[in-house]
Amino acid sequence: MTPIGVIHTPFRQMRDTPIQPLGGQAVRGQIVLDPAYAEGLADVEGFSHLTLVYCFDRITQPALRVVPYMDTQERGIFATRAPKRPNRIGLSTVRLLGVQGGVLDICDVDMLDGTPLLDIKPFYPRYDNRHDARAGWLEQVAEPPVAQLRADDRFAR
Amino acid sequence: MTPIGVIHTPFRQMRDTPIQPLGGQAVRGQIVLDPAYAEGLADVEGFSHLTLVYCFDRITQPALRVVPYMDTQERGIFATRAPKRPNRIGLSTVRLLGVQGGVLDICDVDMLDGTPLLDIKPFYPRYDNRHDARAGWLEQVAEPPVAQLRADDRFAR
Repeated sequence: MTPIGVIHTPFRQMRDTPIQPLGGQAVRGQIVLDPAYAEGLADVEGFSHLTLVYCFDRITQPALRVVPYMDTQERGIFATRAPKRPNRIGLSTVRLLGVQGGVLDICDVDMLDGTPLLDIKPFYPRYDNRHDARAGWLEQVAEPPVAQLRADDRFAR
Repeated sequence: MTPIGVIHTPFRQMRDTPIQPLGGQAVRGQIVLDPAYAEGLADVEGFSHLTLVYCFDRITQPALRVVPYMDTQERGIFATRAPKRPNRIGLSTVRLLGVQGGVLDICDVDMLDGTPLLDIKPFYPRYDNRHDARAGWLEQVAEPPVAQLRADDRFAR
């Protein structure tokens, strides 16, 4: 895997970074694509939302059980979105504001500044929404307000 | 990146494989996780849908412009879900039927048999659905019936 570009955001450290695009609503960022891939951006501008696939590059130690931000007890890593994953792959569906050459202005960002981008997928509601999904332990926790969907330092070590 | 397991499906070649989970509705498959990661499956069983991150390992030649299955004209690769992507990463949200040890029974599969699995994310409607998304060129094409969401050989070369 080779990064195809870099994601720039206002977030320099894990603490207080939104834990999901929902927590980063209206926070702006920018993708600077490697010029070698700019041709692949044709027709992207018509999509309002893009799913970014990126690398949690600040994670050094994966873990198979973690206490997620939304919970107080340990869960299996594959039942969470926590970044300490074996392959350190992150997914975030952000809003696209505009494309100029190889630069994409985006918002609803929840990743750290300088995050290596691996892929961009257009979000297509017919394929990507699921209306009948059960969400396991997440259904047991009280939904915190969006402003509280912020990280602390638990995965920074 | 190291595969964490293998996805088994009934599909041995690209032709006639569903191009999205929507096209593979009720088609059953199985994930066989590398036992080293089985502990990470704790609490997964409560989720009805999982987003699988995997490698399009049968793709040898990436392309920056492709004619997608849903269209008759070329589009930038990042405006499509076509597999000839620079980093060959696929995403599919499948239904989880059950977990026994390191084996997950799934359905709605749209990947080839033997596909290397990179990550498993629980699908969480509050985070993952988008209800206000515009979908660019995909809005211009007539929606084919689900049974026609099948691949041909165009990306097999």
